[in-house]
Amino acid sequence: MRDEIARQPLERLADHLREDLAGVDALIRERMSSDHAPRIPQVTAHLIEAGGKRLRPMLTLAAARLMGYEGANHLHLAAAVEFIHTATLLHDDVVDGSQKRRGRPTANLLWDNKSSVLVGDYLFARSFQLMTDTGEMRALRILADASATISEGEVLQLTAATDIATDEEIYIKVVRGKTAALFAAACEVGGVVAGADAAALRALGNYGDAMGIAFQIADDLLDFWGDGTGKNKGDDFRDRKLTLPLIRAIAKADADERAFWERTIGKGRQEAGDLDAALALMERHDTLEETRITALDWSARAKAALVGLPEDPIRDMLSDIADFVVARIN
Amino acid sequence: MRDEIARQPLERLADHLREDLAGVDALIRERMSSDHAPRIPQVTAHLIEAGGKRLRPMLTLAAARLMGYEGANHLHLAAAVEFIHTATLLHDDVVDGSQKRRGRPTANLLWDNKSSVLVGDYLFARSFQLMTDTGEMRALRILADASATISEGEVLQLTAATDIATDEEIYIKVVRGKTAALFAAACEVGGVVAGADAAALRALGNYGDAMGIAFQIADDLLDFWGDGTGKNKGDDFRDRKLTLPLIRAIAKADADERAFWERTIGKGRQEAGDLDAALALMERHDTLEETRITALDWSARAKAALVGLPEDPIRDMLSDIADFVVARIN
Repeated sequence: MRDEIARQPLERLADHLREDLAGVDALIRERMSSDHAPRIPQVTAHLIEAGGKRLRPMLTLAAARLMGYEGANHLHLAAAVEFIHTATLLHDDVVDGSQKRRGRPTANLLWDNKSSVLVGDYLFARSFQLMTDTGEMRALRILADASATISEGEVLQLTAATDIATDEEIYIKVVRGKTAALFAAACEVGGVVAGADAAALRALGNYGDAMGIAFQIADDLLDFWGDGTGKNKGDDFRDRKLTLPLIRAIAKADADERAFWERTIGKGRQEAGDLDAALALMERHDTLEETRITALDWSARAKAALVGLPEDPIRDMLSDIADFVVARIN
Repeated sequence: MRDEIARQPLERLADHLREDLAGVDALIRERMSSDHAPRIPQVTAHLIEAGGKRLRPMLTLAAARLMGYEGANHLHLAAAVEFIHTATLLHDDVVDGSQKRRGRPTANLLWDNKSSVLVGDYLFARSFQLMTDTGEMRALRILADASATISEGEVLQLTAATDIATDEEIYIKVVRGKTAALFAAACEVGGVVAGADAAALRALGNYGDAMGIAFQIADDLLDFWGDGTGKNKGDDFRDRKLTLPLIRAIAKADADERAFWERTIGKGRQEAGDLDAALALMERHDTLEETRITALDWSARAKAALVGLPEDPIRDMLSDIADFVVARIN
């Protein structure tokens, strides 16, 4: 029941933007084609039609409509955002050696790593073509910056992942790369295409950034709760991924505890019972609850960012989405 | 001695563009940095400072100067072109599982595939940032189109590689993806930044396209000549890569010969003596010589494209470069 209420804002926004979303889907199908290389639409369709929520393109459409846009360029930017997202998923699954995504085998498993790398590159190029269609240089800049932040965050995660000196600042940078940068850019370019002023663009960007950070922190927390999203409880611990509850527990560790973290995360020598021991340490230092509060705080910041924007049903739905992304931990 | 004469055009052009090239190098060093992820400049520097010829950025600089450009935006476009090239090299080496590039171990070997994929993505994003610096939407379009052609060509090569039905049309598409598309775009955006008219832009693009195709066909031919470039004679045959001399020999094959090609290329079941047998078949059908003529013909087309462009020492050097890329087979 709680889940049903929680899902409402995304569905309501999708319903509100139904025609725009149909336009984006048509554009995506058109642009993912290739006259010469049928493998490209095959790989892309496998991922794009696997029932993603289209959250990112919806943010672009919502921001454009909220700011009074009446044209059709927002469809191109929304499709560009979805292509960037799909390209990063393809490359992430290669980098992580993932075998499943959205409950289905990954493209790197069904085809091969080569196809995932090259089709990701193709979609990235296609996304910039879609942007140039609009003639909006500012939108290009924002999405090029976001793309750089995304890959920089991924490289940072690669090198920081098992280093127990990783602090909250690095964690937030990684989270921006993984999630928040594209959320923020998706919102901001919607405002750009609508000709919104600097204050509104800042507000839209801040909303997307804070909402994305709230979303990712909640996701990282749920990994320790074991919530039935398909991931197993403690996967990040086993993968030696330093997320916020761990980083905070390590910051408060005494000498014995540090040795435990150094062995299990730093050196990756894990034994039976280690996950339970890690959970007990996080409980002792209260970092699971603290992390929950931090996620709720970012969600509140996202809602606060919306205050100066036009009063509109879309603004209320965006606010509800900021609640939705932390609903499972609230 | 012939080699020394042949090298002259590239060196003369580099000398002519010395200040511009220094500006491009400074820009590349500045933009390949990352405040947060030191692995990015490490991987990039490994490749960029490995003594590449900087041919592609030189084409952009040369085209801009030839068309009378006096500003500094061409430096940004030239750096963007080099970043796209470097990103494709990083991803290519992952896709091909290469261990050596320019006589040194590849980045995927020194670090790992993950770093090569992500740093490639970073450079690609950085290249679009460099383009937006110039405010030249048309240049963005041309380079986004070229990027799509590059990855499409690579995917095509992936699927067509061992299929003996591959024909010359597909081969040329692959060659455009591998080489000619970025050569053409590099030339064209130099003209764009100089405000060149449509005819001049077409001429510049045609020059780069034909020169790139000549270059790649010559390279593919040299694989069968065994020329001491570091590759071993017949590597492409062993890798079952269908290049022009093979495609033409297969097109002229009788039933026995088709069975040979099906076994060695289609099925990849190669035995001692097969390379010599393949060479003998290409000799019988004269496809090595025919391929040589085709490369020279593309070189001539490249030179012909330059005719309507302004008379200038740079134009003569571009013409000499079109000779240079086929000098080893001429």
